[in-house]
Amino acid sequence: MPAEKFVVTPYEVRGAIDYDRLRELFGTQDLGPELLARLEKAAGAPLPPLLSRGVYYSHRDLAGILEAAEGKKPFFLYSGRGPSGPMHTAHLAPFELCRWFQERFHASMYIQITDDEKFWLRPQYRREETYAWGIENLLDILAVGFDPARTRVFFDTRSIGTMYSLAVDVAKRIPYSTVKAVFGFPTSTNIGLVFYTALQSVPCFYPSWRTGGPVPCLIPCGIDQDPHFRITRDLAEALGYPKPALLHSQILPGLLGGKMSSSGPEKENALYLNDPPEGATRKLKNAFTGGRATVEEQRRLGATPEVCSVWALWRATFAKDEAEFQTVTRDCRSGAMLCGECKGKLTERVLPFLAAHAARREKLRPTAESLILESAPGSTSSSGGPPIPPP
Amino acid sequence: MPAEKFVVTPYEVRGAIDYDRLRELFGTQDLGPELLARLEKAAGAPLPPLLSRGVYYSHRDLAGILEAAEGKKPFFLYSGRGPSGPMHTAHLAPFELCRWFQERFHASMYIQITDDEKFWLRPQYRREETYAWGIENLLDILAVGFDPARTRVFFDTRSIGTMYSLAVDVAKRIPYSTVKAVFGFPTSTNIGLVFYTALQSVPCFYPSWRTGGPVPCLIPCGIDQDPHFRITRDLAEALGYPKPALLHSQILPGLLGGKMSSSGPEKENALYLNDPPEGATRKLKNAFTGGRATVEEQRRLGATPEVCSVWALWRATFAKDEAEFQTVTRDCRSGAMLCGECKGKLTERVLPFLAAHAARREKLRPTAESLILESAPGSTSSSGGPPIPPP
Repeated sequence: MPAEKFVVTPYEVRGAIDYDRLRELFGTQDLGPELLARLEKAAGAPLPPLLSRGVYYSHRDLAGILEAAEGKKPFFLYSGRGPSGPMHTAHLAPFELCRWFQERFHASMYIQITDDEKFWLRPQYRREETYAWGIENLLDILAVGFDPARTRVFFDTRSIGTMYSLAVDVAKRIPYSTVKAVFGFPTSTNIGLVFYTALQSVPCFYPSWRTGGPVPCLIPCGIDQDPHFRITRDLAEALGYPKPALLHSQILPGLLGGKMSSSGPEKENALYLNDPPEGATRKLKNAFTGGRATVEEQRRLGATPEVCSVWALWRATFAKDEAEFQTVTRDCRSGAMLCGECKGKLTERVLPFLAAHAARREKLRPTAESLILESAPGSTSSSGGPPIPPP
Repeated sequence: MPAEKFVVTPYEVRGAIDYDRLRELFGTQDLGPELLARLEKAAGAPLPPLLSRGVYYSHRDLAGILEAAEGKKPFFLYSGRGPSGPMHTAHLAPFELCRWFQERFHASMYIQITDDEKFWLRPQYRREETYAWGIENLLDILAVGFDPARTRVFFDTRSIGTMYSLAVDVAKRIPYSTVKAVFGFPTSTNIGLVFYTALQSVPCFYPSWRTGGPVPCLIPCGIDQDPHFRITRDLAEALGYPKPALLHSQILPGLLGGKMSSSGPEKENALYLNDPPEGATRKLKNAFTGGRATVEEQRRLGATPEVCSVWALWRATFAKDEAEFQTVTRDCRSGAMLCGECKGKLTERVLPFLAAHAARREKLRPTAESLILESAPGSTSSSGGPPIPPP
């Protein structure tokens, strides 16, 4: 196999990603029109933009979730966040998709905040920081609009009492050699990070473990997270739990190109949920696009939305409906709308979105922590999870 | 360096151990008469047999503990147990020594039950088993006679909520390469066992972490456990905590020779605390001794107590005072007492000991679990430890 021009792991995304090739490399399935039509029918509602516009493009075992959905059987959702700084718009994508599934199928939702993992990942992070960012990030996630009665949070350093016994079971099944091969860790990697993937498997199995019966799990996530769940899927059967199903998104591009990451030094590369209006406006103005060298050329030849960070924002989050998305795309490609105009329109959409998001998250501050799973003292059993919806 | 004829790690003890050579290899200090005299003076009482008879023979930084003791400053004790079966008499040694320190210096005592570690260690162990043995073993340990007001228990799968944040700090400082080098783990080792040593450091730092000031720690343990605490000591300074001091015992020999281990297939090799009288009697009758081939030869030349498993039991636990220990040793060496007589006398001492121990442990069953540290729900801080004795 020739060397690939890109690297995608949970701990590194580098190079120009060929998504079809990546799906081949990871051995995942194409999220084709047939499955999407089946999902739309089971939901009884149009697909959300993240699915209809192809941001989520790959899966593992979605058919099992569709069978549960079609048979009105319970399944649950799981997604997470490693907190090391403010969240940006691309971070919300898996949670927006989860909300849609929860609304349509009354599914339980588990959110994992991996403050331990983030602390272990970089020498410069302090534990108090990753903890504090965990609380702030949780507010951003909950502001997406989950049903509190069906939503619970694994906040690693607080929920460990609830998670640990299951994590101990999982960890016994994972040899160091697997972690080394899957993540490419050097031997200087600390033993926390080596252990961590066991904790990322816990939410996948938790409802099955708690109820004693198989409850299917669906995980919407960036395709860079797939390696964690390959480990989870490989050991599910031996532990007697269903393999979690996955929906994989493409890596949303940063405003300056590359992955929209909050970890890099390039704070201008991401549109943060806490950017003040002037900051957001400036970042969008400076964003990398698929435009031409001159106005004349762009009017004549049109631009290329597929490489444009601004178009990616319209596509994933901000085009309010399919008609608007098609108009934006068509006018970009034809040259009818220049990049400056497009950025101005997007800014008008982004600023109220950020303001409304900020208001929602602050309203949730007094109650958010009540959703964190913590174990009761004097009890060997874990505290309660959300109710599993009746068939 | 030539290959050694013995192997001593926390996970393997093999070959004929040269204890002086082992102390050199591990880089520990001789527990000489000067330090012992200083300890006796600070305690205001005779040394316990485990110290006066040389079972504990090596140390690290005992002087720091002596300084605390002499200055009436607080220090605390820590020892633990990996539960995979019933405990035998040799397992009690570190706890008996801890009890003496607690009595003499009013020191706090932390007991760690590492049910996670034991589960991770052997494929055949089930988690429910190591948990259940953890509770049973805890009763045996508490039956040694600790002051409940000054004693707390870290039961790993139950106390993890209290331990985890500190374990996360510790784990970040331990690269996989260190664990691999210190324990000699192959790459097939599961990631639980790789992570585990972080949890064995937690009790060493816990009082300092909780109180925000340095509280010295003393750990009596078998010398095979020293590698864990070498890691702990190496990272203590960087975390801002005192290095734990250690008192190392020789490995108590089994009744059939070798280490008295509860993990091996040779259940006849150890005197278990739950052995029925006929079982204990039979095991002692069959025990390996330092006797001669014939009665005539033994009467003439005497026996060799230093290689005898029965003498080791007199020495560590059963000789009621120094006079009796000297008599047993002298009559063995001179040939005045033959092995059968010696075994009979020891059996008369062992059977009432086991009965009294069993009665004490059962009395503790209703209250023992109240000493387990568990975190309170809805709180980010850990639950309370035992009071640190006032200066």
